[in-house]
Amino acid sequence: MANRLTKLDEEKVFKDPVHRYIHVKDGLIWELIGTAEFQRLRRIKQLGTTYLTFHGAEHSRFGHSLGVYEITRRIIDVFDDHPHWDPDERLLCLCSALLHDVGHGPFSHSFEKVFDTDHELFTRDIILGDTEINAVLKKVDPAFPKKVAEVIGKTYENKLVVSLISSQIDADRMDYLLRDAYFTGVSYGQFDLERIWRVMRPRDDQVVIKHSGMHAVEDYIMSRYQMYWQVYFHPVTRSAEVILSKILHRAKALYKAGYNFEHQPLPLLPLFNGKLSLEDFLRLDEAVFLFYFQIWQQEDDAILSDLCSRFVNRRLFKYIEFSPNTNFNLYSDLREAFKDADIDPEYYLSVDSSSDLPYDFYRPGEEEERLPIHLLMPGGGLRELSRESAVVEAISGKKRTDHKLYFPKDFITDLSINKAAKEKIRKLLKFEGGSGHA
Amino acid sequence: MANRLTKLDEEKVFKDPVHRYIHVKDGLIWELIGTAEFQRLRRIKQLGTTYLTFHGAEHSRFGHSLGVYEITRRIIDVFDDHPHWDPDERLLCLCSALLHDVGHGPFSHSFEKVFDTDHELFTRDIILGDTEINAVLKKVDPAFPKKVAEVIGKTYENKLVVSLISSQIDADRMDYLLRDAYFTGVSYGQFDLERIWRVMRPRDDQVVIKHSGMHAVEDYIMSRYQMYWQVYFHPVTRSAEVILSKILHRAKALYKAGYNFEHQPLPLLPLFNGKLSLEDFLRLDEAVFLFYFQIWQQEDDAILSDLCSRFVNRRLFKYIEFSPNTNFNLYSDLREAFKDADIDPEYYLSVDSSSDLPYDFYRPGEEEERLPIHLLMPGGGLRELSRESAVVEAISGKKRTDHKLYFPKDFITDLSINKAAKEKIRKLLKFEGGSGHA
Amino acid sequence: MANRLTKLDEEKVFKDPVHRYIHVKDGLIWELIGTAEFQRLRRIKQLGTTYLTFHGAEHSRFGHSLGVYEITRRIIDVFDDHPHWDPDERLLCLCSALLHDVGHGPFSHSFEKVFDTDHELFTRDIILGDTEINAVLKKVDPAFPKKVAEVIGKTYENKLVVSLISSQIDADRMDYLLRDAYFTGVSYGQFDLERIWRVMRPRDDQVVIKHSGMHAVEDYIMSRYQMYWQVYFHPVTRSAEVILSKILHRAKALYKAGYNFEHQPLPLLPLFNGKLSLEDFLRLDEAVFLFYFQIWQQEDDAILSDLCSRFVNRRLFKYIEFSPNTNFNLYSDLREAFKDADIDPEYYLSVDSSSDLPYDFYRPGEEEERLPIHLLMPGGGLRELSRESAVVEAISGKKRTDHKLYFPKDFITDLSINKAAKEKIRKLLKFEGGSGHA
Amino acid sequence: MANRLTKLDEEKVFKDPVHRYIHVKDGLIWELIGTAEFQRLRRIKQLGTTYLTFHGAEHSRFGHSLGVYEITRRIIDVFDDHPHWDPDERLLCLCSALLHDVGHGPFSHSFEKVFDTDHELFTRDIILGDTEINAVLKKVDPAFPKKVAEVIGKTYENKLVVSLISSQIDADRMDYLLRDAYFTGVSYGQFDLERIWRVMRPRDDQVVIKHSGMHAVEDYIMSRYQMYWQVYFHPVTRSAEVILSKILHRAKALYKAGYNFEHQPLPLLPLFNGKLSLEDFLRLDEAVFLFYFQIWQQEDDAILSDLCSRFVNRRLFKYIEFSPNTNFNLYSDLREAFKDADIDPEYYLSVDSSSDLPYDFYRPGEEEERLPIHLLMPGGGLRELSRESAVVEAISGKKRTDHKLYFPKDFITDLSINKAAKEKIRKLLKFEGGSGHA
Repeated sequence: MANRLTKLDEEKVFKDPVHRYIHVKDGLIWELIGTAEFQRLRRIKQLGTTYLTFHGAEHSRFGHSLGVYEITRRIIDVFDDHPHWDPDERLLCLCSALLHDVGHGPFSHSFEKVFDTDHELFTRDIILGDTEINAVLKKVDPAFPKKVAEVIGKTYENKLVVSLISSQIDADRMDYLLRDAYFTGVSYGQFDLERIWRVMRPRDDQVVIKHSGMHAVEDYIMSRYQMYWQVYFHPVTRSAEVILSKILHRAKALYKAGYNFEHQPLPLLPLFNGKLSLEDFLRLDEAVFLFYFQIWQQEDDAILSDLCSRFVNRRLFKYIEFSPNTNFNLYSDLREAFKDADIDPEYYLSVDSSSDLPYDFYRPGEEEERLPIHLLMPGGGLRELSRESAVVEAISGKKRTDHKLYFPKDFITDLSINKAAKEKIRKLLKFEGGSGHA
Repeated sequence: MANRLTKLDEEKVFKDPVHRYIHVKDGLIWELIGTAEFQRLRRIKQLGTTYLTFHGAEHSRFGHSLGVYEITRRIIDVFDDHPHWDPDERLLCLCSALLHDVGHGPFSHSFEKVFDTDHELFTRDIILGDTEINAVLKKVDPAFPKKVAEVIGKTYENKLVVSLISSQIDADRMDYLLRDAYFTGVSYGQFDLERIWRVMRPRDDQVVIKHSGMHAVEDYIMSRYQMYWQVYFHPVTRSAEVILSKILHRAKALYKAGYNFEHQPLPLLPLFNGKLSLEDFLRLDEAVFLFYFQIWQQEDDAILSDLCSRFVNRRLFKYIEFSPNTNFNLYSDLREAFKDADIDPEYYLSVDSSSDLPYDFYRPGEEEERLPIHLLMPGGGLRELSRESAVVEAISGKKRTDHKLYFPKDFITDLSINKAAKEKIRKLLKFEGGSGHA
Repeated sequence: MANRLTKLDEEKVFKDPVHRYIHVKDGLIWELIGTAEFQRLRRIKQLGTTYLTFHGAEHSRFGHSLGVYEITRRIIDVFDDHPHWDPDERLLCLCSALLHDVGHGPFSHSFEKVFDTDHELFTRDIILGDTEINAVLKKVDPAFPKKVAEVIGKTYENKLVVSLISSQIDADRMDYLLRDAYFTGVSYGQFDLERIWRVMRPRDDQVVIKHSGMHAVEDYIMSRYQMYWQVYFHPVTRSAEVILSKILHRAKALYKAGYNFEHQPLPLLPLFNGKLSLEDFLRLDEAVFLFYFQIWQQEDDAILSDLCSRFVNRRLFKYIEFSPNTNFNLYSDLREAFKDADIDPEYYLSVDSSSDLPYDFYRPGEEEERLPIHLLMPGGGLRELSRESAVVEAISGKKRTDHKLYFPKDFITDLSINKAAKEKIRKLLKFEGGSGHA
Repeated sequence: MANRLTKLDEEKVFKDPVHRYIHVKDGLIWELIGTAEFQRLRRIKQLGTTYLTFHGAEHSRFGHSLGVYEITRRIIDVFDDHPHWDPDERLLCLCSALLHDVGHGPFSHSFEKVFDTDHELFTRDIILGDTEINAVLKKVDPAFPKKVAEVIGKTYENKLVVSLISSQIDADRMDYLLRDAYFTGVSYGQFDLERIWRVMRPRDDQVVIKHSGMHAVEDYIMSRYQMYWQVYFHPVTRSAEVILSKILHRAKALYKAGYNFEHQPLPLLPLFNGKLSLEDFLRLDEAVFLFYFQIWQQEDDAILSDLCSRFVNRRLFKYIEFSPNTNFNLYSDLREAFKDADIDPEYYLSVDSSSDLPYDFYRPGEEEERLPIHLLMPGGGLRELSRESAVVEAISGKKRTDHKLYFPKDFITDLSINKAAKEKIRKLLKFEGGSGHA
């Protein structure tokens, strides 16, 4: 009944560079998009600091969320009269797709690491708490918000619905690969989305892929692989992320130590105090952080000021490749040498490993939680993808880790003070590697 | 000599979605890109509030500036050994192309209108003042910054150089049409850039187009026409722009009236006081404004708070078509009716005409200043484009103006108070027209 | 009932570069595609001799016919539950769309002109005659083939159905503009097809366009304008077409004169005799003509041999612009001069005017027969497009004609014989204009 | 000196859908394109029978040859002042790139297999024999044709030049992957061509790839892998190829047996006699074959007539997967059963293995002859690609073979005669597998 009630008189469309048009036929979806909490996603970049490497990557989570909704809508259209598909789940799927990222904070990865928060909890709070989104969802049914939260939290009983939103080949991933490729301008993220959504079939507890679509899925898997290593884990992006984390650390540490900020960062205090209410959280967006980074360039604290200036003006850290297993003394030797040179290694020397890297796209342990991709064979049986595809088999399960050591090369190049100590650092670093805009 | 001195050992590239790659071979260009003033362009959107209509339009002036540089570079490559072309002007063209927008403030159009500033003066100040950009440019020659400022200011003696950057078919326009089409996702902005840059030829005082390229230029002109009316002058974007202007007006008026802001907007005070130094200006970016819009939602002043909430949460004004010539009483009648209903027409009733609209793409009087496009005929003579092209002739010179009256429909729909006065407004407005996301 | 009976168990798809996928759900459509008469379209190029100018234009009428079907299918999907739309017409529309070009012969324009045939009559014959297509269509209903023929012949009583296939903005034109742009590689043919098909609405006797889609239609009209003048009427293509016509003329004239061909062109004799049965016609494809052009290079007749060699090896005629009104003596003077130089003007001097040009895209008198485009205004009324759109108004009704005089420049450049006569020709021609590959 | 002599006054361009424009600056190249032997490539499809599976694949070897030339030109432009590069080799490279496929016959693979010819020998003959191409090349230097033939034949002493045209990542492959993907409309063939050509560097005896371009090369390798299995080895294409071979076999066998053709296939007789002169060969194009296939449908010989009708009207053979190792009796059992059913297995039962398949893209033994791809490491050393790239390592060296058994399913389904024998065949075949348009 909810479906019927909420049908719009006239379909609404959003022009979208990735999917051409995003179509909204349900009043409920239209209202959700209009809520303050959803509009807030316009002020949070999809790829955090990646725009400092790929200047086109300035797109926000708003467009991505619409995209995930749209892909889900198209998949469900294909399911329409399939016996395994319950049409009553339609609206639940669409809402979950639209709202799956609504709890993300600005520069999500660094934010969560420094302040020990979890975007999944905020997503849940936004859906279930006293918000405009909750009010809209309750119009369907008082129990509806909880269902949406369960689908996003992967605990909903109908696992088929869950797998549409979270699996190895879900609407989320398909949208972000295509979208991030589009905005960065790289050619790697391309795959045949239409082919994939047309060969998706519902089964008891998961979405499976008709065997004839295997090659399109292979192509998608390869796109993912390339995008991770060439875009998401790009060393220059990670340099910006390191600096961002250090700024947040420093500001929090200063606050805890009673430092007197020239501009008291009122909206950030609940964060520093570890007492962030939902209301506080919803006021945070990237503008708030960028505002303080801008302002803090004039703060007295030399470290905070320097780090902010680096971030704002894109004067990033350089890096060298670093193998913790073979160079295990290097890091501690460098820390000592940095101290001798009066450069605080806490803020100016950082190991960054790609396996615990930015964004929510990939985290250790995550893959295991996700269902593998199953092919629907001509005879009707299922077969796990890597058993059919030589390419996927070759790639899958091979965890690749990349460690880099980041530091401000300019500090060490400038030998006007602490010359001897800096020479020692230079010797340890051998000044291999490098960086650049792109 | 400057050219040789600044040649990079290895070409640098930026991945760009519009031009595939942007190539930097000159150390000078590389250094300019790295300056704080140029990096600041990352924090200013290319299309102001357009992202509230076309969600993809979140791109900044940074990428556009690189794009204008790149197109200019490619055009000049074709000129290379042409007798009309002086290779010593190469670096001047490239720097001018790169820096032509460097003086733009956040939400440039509203900003300039409310605070009576001029981005062209700021551009000049940034190039000639005590800035990193000035320091880099002076490495070429102490007189070089002044030349760059003159080219951008259109007063440089070599008009051929000026026409590359500012004319009816300059690198600036060609980049923004393609780029804005790419990011919004509309198909109208497409034209054959490569064809055009390859048929451009230098003449004494302007760039002309080989006759065989006429159709490509027609296509470019049509793209411009379509982009203006479908993207740049979109009524929903203008609604957001109206609200933005009203916020700035209100904040300034409150400050002038001695209002006590809960959060004193320190970085904006020089603006309110009309005493904006170059240093003050350079600290302003969109994050600063978005930060205050966010914060001011909690201010006591009901108008400021309401307007900010509308902007932040995208609850825009609706509009009706309005013809000042035939409806000349409507506006004053409505102002009276608004007052009767206790709705301040100063902030809640606004006429917006497309000819004095957003962005620097088009302004009354601008076209006249720009050289017409000349075709280089097979015999060697020149001929003005519209004399050869029926399509261009049909379009050119026909100024089209569009007036709309913006107002908060929700205020008038809610009849709980001032019922009679609001009914009168509703009658005057007839509630024609509408709005929507896109 | 027909619809239900013919529904395929599993949708079939064709990969198509223009529409990504072409979807076939009806067994009837699938069977029609498999008929010999439809497969024959693979052996007839969509753009005749255009591949000699744009080497990418080697695509056949087969893909175009599928494309027209696909666009029609998508439009009808939008009509689905519209009160003005009769779902029983669906299959009729799809079949008519698919088959609308089935009577085209090889190099259709020259073919028809020289042999005085009409592809519309052949289309009718194929649908109603003793063919595989007729047998498939009759499965729906014995009267069904006649209906299909009537829709294509524009005499069907439901004019709404006719307008889908033949109007100023029908599925045929939309497909060929996009397809021909794709294969030639030009950028002019682009417009937003999806936008247009989504704003099409059925009315009593025609398809109309929602007013909000006006700009997309403007863009389509401009694409058409550009494609005609830059691709379809390209002077080099017309040169090839001139030679082609001359070959056919010569071969027919020789046959009529009792010339003894070394290879008797058996499949062409019915054509030369003016007694072409449907069976004879269906055996003709481009391979047949290209085979004889190849072979005839060795014929004794110097003119036939030379013309064939020119066509096969792309040694085309050059041209000059020619204005019949002001240069009315030029043509007759040239004919005399050609005769003096022993060059037969019947075959080596030809005026080609773009208004009686190749292909079935445009013919004098055609536009008038087609319904103008109507916009569906917000209030529900209709308004003819050019009254709303300044661009369309500027272009419409302005017939543009282009006359060129084609001749073999090499014959005249070679002065070894008939020097004086040739000098006279050269003087008359002034050797203006030129040609080239592209 | 040759370079200078042949420079055109004005650059010529071809519009190309893949590379946007193909630029010709050398008179020599322009003249080569105009020769009869090069124009002949317009009449030979790039992908043989693939158009019967992917209807867009109707493009000829002409465009591909221009594309290989263009990529080579762009690579060489990057080499320009590199110490390892000898600018005197420029024109040789360009000519070799342009002419590398000039000896291909119609439906090259089947043609060569049935008539035991070799396109490489014809290429050599065309370059060195009495042809227009030879005459043009000799203008550079009497020894120049021989050099071109050596480069194409891979025997030229400067292996760097050879590797541009023939290696694992040569201009030939890069063009065909992109071009075939474009015309078929599949998304798999995409990779970043511009990135690759910009990171190519000349070394003593090969072109190497800067390490920073490794990911672009990975992407290219994956594109190749996908294109082979999804386009080049598509089972439906192979079905058409099987029928084509059988037609040629049958026609030759009939001729040898003294069969009296209604239309004597004069141009094919030298082929049947095994005495094909260069002149004979150059007259063969696809139109010649398609002409006879068309005509032969009316021949008395039932097998020839049936096979031709299948090819012309696309009534292809069906197939089952076939594993020669495990089913080694199946083939011989089927042959017997076919004979019992009066179906000649020589023409109606065929094993096709993808490793000895169509086109010149891949042949057993070929890879070994080609140099592996080497990366130029930051330190200056070389490293073979698969040692650096996990993806390439996973794929390389794994030969994949695919065997299919083709047969006319309709013959066996029709049980009106030889019912028992046909039932036996059906049992043996189990009627697994299938076919379809795409």
